[in-house]
Amino acid sequence: MAKIDFDKYEEFYAKRSGEMRSSVMRDLMAVVARPEVISLAGGMPNTESFSRKILAKIMHDISMHDSAAALQYGPTEGFDETKENITKVMAAEGTHVDIGNLIVTTGAQQGIDLSARLLIDPGDTIIAEAPTYPGAIPSFTNFQANVCQVPLDADGLRVDLARKEVEKLAKNGAKPKFIYVIPNFHNPGGVSLSLHRRHELVALAKEHRLIILEDNPYGQLRFEGEPLPTLYSLDDDDNVIYLSTFSKILSPGIRLGWVAAPAPLLAKFNLGKQAADLCPSTLAQMLVNRYFKEARWQDYVSRVIDIYRARRDVMLAALKEYFPEEASWTLPQGGFFIWATLPEYINSADLLALALEEELVAFVPGSGAWADGKSGANHMRLAFCGVPEDKIEEGIKRLGKVIKEQMGLYEALRGGKES
Amino acid sequence: MAKIDFDKYEEFYAKRSGEMRSSVMRDLMAVVARPEVISLAGGMPNTESFSRKILAKIMHDISMHDSAAALQYGPTEGFDETKENITKVMAAEGTHVDIGNLIVTTGAQQGIDLSARLLIDPGDTIIAEAPTYPGAIPSFTNFQANVCQVPLDADGLRVDLARKEVEKLAKNGAKPKFIYVIPNFHNPGGVSLSLHRRHELVALAKEHRLIILEDNPYGQLRFEGEPLPTLYSLDDDDNVIYLSTFSKILSPGIRLGWVAAPAPLLAKFNLGKQAADLCPSTLAQMLVNRYFKEARWQDYVSRVIDIYRARRDVMLAALKEYFPEEASWTLPQGGFFIWATLPEYINSADLLALALEEELVAFVPGSGAWADGKSGANHMRLAFCGVPEDKIEEGIKRLGKVIKEQMGLYEALRGGKES
Repeated sequence: MAKIDFDKYEEFYAKRSGEMRSSVMRDLMAVVARPEVISLAGGMPNTESFSRKILAKIMHDISMHDSAAALQYGPTEGFDETKENITKVMAAEGTHVDIGNLIVTTGAQQGIDLSARLLIDPGDTIIAEAPTYPGAIPSFTNFQANVCQVPLDADGLRVDLARKEVEKLAKNGAKPKFIYVIPNFHNPGGVSLSLHRRHELVALAKEHRLIILEDNPYGQLRFEGEPLPTLYSLDDDDNVIYLSTFSKILSPGIRLGWVAAPAPLLAKFNLGKQAADLCPSTLAQMLVNRYFKEARWQDYVSRVIDIYRARRDVMLAALKEYFPEEASWTLPQGGFFIWATLPEYINSADLLALALEEELVAFVPGSGAWADGKSGANHMRLAFCGVPEDKIEEGIKRLGKVIKEQMGLYEALRGGKES
Repeated sequence: MAKIDFDKYEEFYAKRSGEMRSSVMRDLMAVVARPEVISLAGGMPNTESFSRKILAKIMHDISMHDSAAALQYGPTEGFDETKENITKVMAAEGTHVDIGNLIVTTGAQQGIDLSARLLIDPGDTIIAEAPTYPGAIPSFTNFQANVCQVPLDADGLRVDLARKEVEKLAKNGAKPKFIYVIPNFHNPGGVSLSLHRRHELVALAKEHRLIILEDNPYGQLRFEGEPLPTLYSLDDDDNVIYLSTFSKILSPGIRLGWVAAPAPLLAKFNLGKQAADLCPSTLAQMLVNRYFKEARWQDYVSRVIDIYRARRDVMLAALKEYFPEEASWTLPQGGFFIWATLPEYINSADLLALALEEELVAFVPGSGAWADGKSGANHMRLAFCGVPEDKIEEGIKRLGKVIKEQMGLYEALRGGKES
């Protein structure tokens, strides 16, 4: 082939393509795949806990009894049996859903992306948390949304501030296309939306006729305390689109998630999914369905919860021991992530470069969680899910060292300027 | 939940969502799943031919030796090993591709959809064949393309007419965002693009600086004659985006396809795929990769080719015996489909309703292959791939009966009017 002229395609790109950006996490994946690096970056479930024997048995049974069907196309919305199993997962969080309100997707990521495709016109506003899931931002900006981010605190989204944004938009005759919220064990924030605020948010949606996009991949992974009701279950006005996934309770490698939505919206999801990739994987659905029949999925979840809880505890203890006292961090009751806050003058993207080079340790810099790619630079997302306890301690120790060096350097420079 | 107000979501839908439509094929799937129906509708590969023992062995090995990795996330662009195997598949059609030009997708459908996402702004023109793949139309219209369809004949796309459309657009300072073409064993047309026209099309792209979107899911399924070079291999100017899939040579139920494209475009595909569904299925890729290591994939393809060839021959013979002499049809040298043309006054959508009700036989009406949803109503797509020979003959016999009845009715009405 001839040498490629990189500019020649410019005239072909759609405007949304110009808005494409990468989520920081995915860029990091190549780096953290190096075995010598301690990665506190990726939100990788601990798939090592899954019984290889059970997997082998399930796959053997599918292969010997159902191979032709497993290898064939299936319905766009997924099998009824898959949807029945999804109702069981949602019931475990106290949420009733009818299978007629479900569509099986290629991970919850596809649920986010289809929501953006369905609902966002260029220039539309959507409201998200600050910080928000770094992987959601490309879907929103791909479709040229104006992402208005409203702060989290220890009780999750500041619904009072979200209300102010909604009212500000209403004064201009506008409305956000949806409010995107991760109520449980927030990625990256590590916090959960309080019960009081859940009621407030659902009421806000009802009052202003808004759609809430509830993304709940981590809800099952609660280490302690009582489960909180989903927004989907609190809503009596068909305002909530609910997203979740088998990625965190079983496997992300099979790429199966789901959307629960009011029927008219679901019909659009179905059309969007047809265009996007025709249907969910038949083989993957059969794996899930046979697994749900033969094993107790909640036993596996309990087992990984024990692992994650222990890892969180080690990370919290290590943070206390090795991080400077100027730093603070969230205390997650579940999920995968702790969100740490460093002094304002620390840029965690620079810090990551140093940490990788000098100490072979990785994390996700905070700015990936803001649509502007700049805010929140003094934050860091620390994932405790995918790394053994000893490595977590060692990783936090090394990070603490780099942070303290950076702070020392800053103090020295400031001292130098003052003298 | 309260009763759903279907209109309440109207204000939220993006414009592209308003353009969403279903591909006829997917709507038919529920109907043709009824066992009493002989379906000549769906383009379902004959997955029954795949050895359940080989599948069981592969899945056992993956489960016992690689379960943690198989269940985990993977890189967005797919594993290098998957891409190496894709180069082998493309090499079997005489096409050289570098793994740096490949991304693994969730079926070739995702390749079509990501192309639309990357390249189409509302109101842009794209050129497609008439008829074109019914499943591609929703991706194009989702992104609000103006789909300009140029006729096929027995030698595939009328490139001379495509050139006229390009020149007409050029006069208005415009350009199609791409020319979408299925060069081998066209779906639904059953024809292949001649070698001469392949050269003409590649030259047209070079001359006018156009992108060709080459969709080649069926190229490996050649029953007779010499393989023709892909457009990708004929292009020396980086103008071709090439799409294909494991669906037809192995399994559609694992949802794995690929895009080969010049590097700058591929980088955009990667960003689009991140937003769409993060990464291809790890488990599915491992299945493919182990299969390519342990078995001879081309032996399997040879085996299914023998089945499909025999089924095509039965369908052609049945068409000759049972269809009226006013009908004509294409003579595919491979793939899944025959495209039949009936007298102008026959509406094949009405015919389908009758055929299903009276004779329990299904096919895809021609109008699904036009973006306007109306043209081509006197055509029908007949799939010979997924039905045993005796049922093919019986199905065509029943269809012939319905068609002749319709023609008789028309003649009687016309006679009645004339008398």
